[in-house]
Amino acid sequence: MSSPQASALDDEFSAIVGNDNVMTSEIDRYAYSYDAAVLDPVMPGIVVRPTTSEVLGRVVKFCHDNGLPLTVRGAGTNLSGGTIPHPGGVVVLTNGLNRILEINEEDLYAVVEPGVVTAAFAQEVARRGLFYPPDPGSQTVSTLGGNVAENAGGLRGLKYGVTKDYVMGMEFWDVHGNLIRSGSRTVKSVTGYNLHGLMVASEGTLGVFDKIILKLIPPPQAARSMMAVFDSITSASETVAAIIAAKIVPATLEMMDNFTIRTVDNFRKAGLPTDAAALLLIEVDGHPGQVADEAARVEEICHRQGARELKVANDTTERNTIWQARRDALPALAKLKPTCVLEDATVPRSKIPAMIAALGEISTKFNLTIGTFGHAGDGNLHPTILTDKRDKAEWQRVEHAVEEIFDRALALGGTLSGEHGIGLAKRGFLIKELGQATLDYTAKLKKAVDPKNILNPKKMEG
Amino acid sequence: MSSPQASALDDEFSAIVGNDNVMTSEIDRYAYSYDAAVLDPVMPGIVVRPTTSEVLGRVVKFCHDNGLPLTVRGAGTNLSGGTIPHPGGVVVLTNGLNRILEINEEDLYAVVEPGVVTAAFAQEVARRGLFYPPDPGSQTVSTLGGNVAENAGGLRGLKYGVTKDYVMGMEFWDVHGNLIRSGSRTVKSVTGYNLHGLMVASEGTLGVFDKIILKLIPPPQAARSMMAVFDSITSASETVAAIIAAKIVPATLEMMDNFTIRTVDNFRKAGLPTDAAALLLIEVDGHPGQVADEAARVEEICHRQGARELKVANDTTERNTIWQARRDALPALAKLKPTCVLEDATVPRSKIPAMIAALGEISTKFNLTIGTFGHAGDGNLHPTILTDKRDKAEWQRVEHAVEEIFDRALALGGTLSGEHGIGLAKRGFLIKELGQATLDYTAKLKKAVDPKNILNPKKMEG
Repeated sequence: MSSPQASALDDEFSAIVGNDNVMTSEIDRYAYSYDAAVLDPVMPGIVVRPTTSEVLGRVVKFCHDNGLPLTVRGAGTNLSGGTIPHPGGVVVLTNGLNRILEINEEDLYAVVEPGVVTAAFAQEVARRGLFYPPDPGSQTVSTLGGNVAENAGGLRGLKYGVTKDYVMGMEFWDVHGNLIRSGSRTVKSVTGYNLHGLMVASEGTLGVFDKIILKLIPPPQAARSMMAVFDSITSASETVAAIIAAKIVPATLEMMDNFTIRTVDNFRKAGLPTDAAALLLIEVDGHPGQVADEAARVEEICHRQGARELKVANDTTERNTIWQARRDALPALAKLKPTCVLEDATVPRSKIPAMIAALGEISTKFNLTIGTFGHAGDGNLHPTILTDKRDKAEWQRVEHAVEEIFDRALALGGTLSGEHGIGLAKRGFLIKELGQATLDYTAKLKKAVDPKNILNPKKMEG
Repeated sequence: MSSPQASALDDEFSAIVGNDNVMTSEIDRYAYSYDAAVLDPVMPGIVVRPTTSEVLGRVVKFCHDNGLPLTVRGAGTNLSGGTIPHPGGVVVLTNGLNRILEINEEDLYAVVEPGVVTAAFAQEVARRGLFYPPDPGSQTVSTLGGNVAENAGGLRGLKYGVTKDYVMGMEFWDVHGNLIRSGSRTVKSVTGYNLHGLMVASEGTLGVFDKIILKLIPPPQAARSMMAVFDSITSASETVAAIIAAKIVPATLEMMDNFTIRTVDNFRKAGLPTDAAALLLIEVDGHPGQVADEAARVEEICHRQGARELKVANDTTERNTIWQARRDALPALAKLKPTCVLEDATVPRSKIPAMIAALGEISTKFNLTIGTFGHAGDGNLHPTILTDKRDKAEWQRVEHAVEEIFDRALALGGTLSGEHGIGLAKRGFLIKELGQATLDYTAKLKKAVDPKNILNPKKMEG
């Protein structure tokens, strides 16, 4: 802390979490001053790392008693500034709370601490013959606590839903250091308010997660991946709607535009058709019979909609090539320019063609480079603006373009954010979608359980 | 109202909802004084029936401005007293708000008013070639608003989830007559708090539903129903766990004990094996190939676990016979005695054998007739105590037995209520499962948005 009482607070934190788990040096604090959002860093006063549930509860209570703003941080992969600390505030790391407490194979659930890494958890679940579907782009480093706080999505949202759909229950600390319980290890439970539902996507503003009960499911028995090549992005986007209209729900249904295709192919020579206007990357999964049928129908639909080519992955290597191309999209684009603004305004999936058209108009109108890829099957595109924040004139155009992307998505019956969160980045736009009365209702809930406003202040505040 | 200002209030209500939509006679008020719970009736002061969204909002605001307790009522099928009015309070009927506003076949969602009847909605959705899975027992009369307020379950919870899993968004009235929005028509949305999630299962205590956005899915292509006959209820209940452990998730996996089998067969001569200790009623669905495989594996597991017979439905008539038997369970049991106490304490499904054993002990200990049937596949049994509430001595034993059912379910890692709600019936037991801190947290949320406590007072209050 920079205030006179800083060292006294440091000592008290040390007494709670242990000397080794308190960081106060400038370099340490700087390391936790930013996340993956394109926002300026904000220096916290102190960084603490609880290693037990009980200590976590004491940290929360201590912050409340002393009026210290507190931001819980998993891996900091947040794209909307949800893990940027309050100036001079406390950063609470969850990487010391990373135990998988239970994987129950009979009852298909797991209990985890918030700091468990998503992909590590999914792998452990898979080793037991089960499946945890949510697969946010940052899964190799992101934490389950962060995923729940943001309601992280991913490539499988279309068929399998998002993090919200897997949270069966939770224990979390309130600001008074009481452990609050919600939900159950049972498939059905209506005992008490759905507080765990409220916690999902609340961005750390209503409580501090202690333990999370996650639903698991049996894995699909088979899967087939395909890449459809289009000479027209309109045809590609209309194909997305046509597949859903045929009552096929693929596990994954992704799109890449020509700019993204070329950038990805340049990043890793993957033999992509760089002259294509758009690619659809599709995976169907389930029972082998269903996979065969759905793959055949998807192929037929793609051809009918004008795909010039459809490549079906015949083995694991070919399957990996397709999905590596998709995973490369963001890192490849991000290398082109100093600043990469990744949006995730989302529309009902039938409106994907209209949204693609709108993005083309916005790119022209503001003279900006926008690479578009993303989860077309659930209406969640990621238009990615490549820019340099230091170029003030261009940055201003970027800000106008982002606002127009929001406006267009809302006009199409969509939403500001499909999976990246509101945080600091989009809070100014909340009122456009929700209106003042909803923000007032929300503010009352927040104030009731966090009267001193210490839990991740300003995030998702309209 | 019985107070002096009653007629003035009646006039004001008439001015809002129209003369034809206000009921004040004793007989009318009595008709809305009870629901399906075994609880004493409570007379409301007035019953009103808004027929437009805007009028509904004005009714809510009027109640708040005048400090009038308000209970929204769909079909009154509630089993926990959630729709029993506050003494002298206002009952707001939703049967004038029963329009299906949109069924979007491209984007797989529907928008409905709260008074739409569940089965009528499901049928209309099916007519469009889509599927709305939640199927509470009362679906032929229950309303979607009531289903959401209670987070209604049903037979398909196991594979398809419950009402909560289909609520994509909502508009509801706050007590000030403002329309609050949450969620979206998109598959993914993280814009603002998950207020629609909080509204689910909140039993009308936090807001008054205006419009609900419900998720739809493509229907399964095929289904197969089976009835497995067991000479031991332990074998039957262990078979439930064995099916799940084999990573098969049937659409429906129901159990009936011998008492229920005999009662049902007596109710409608269905040719059930009345000497069987237990029946499992099973349906698998999905792709035809998956159905064939899963049915074969279920059959094998049933035989391995000691089923003496397995009947597979060969046509629609045979399928209907199986499910009619299940649907008959509650009406058949309810006819035996004047009072029928239907419980729904729920346990993790691997604990079904232990819960069945506990119910046997409780029946003996308190010398009570308990027929047990229900959703074994999701751990949600319905032990049904047959009694006569006028027999004071027996009724006291019933109350003790119910409490012991709760205690046993909690000790097995379960929950007080899987799908019937807390309402007035179980509020006194909430603290056993949630603890005081959780009740306090909940009370703060409630007070923040309903400071005069007019929204369905006492329900779910610990």
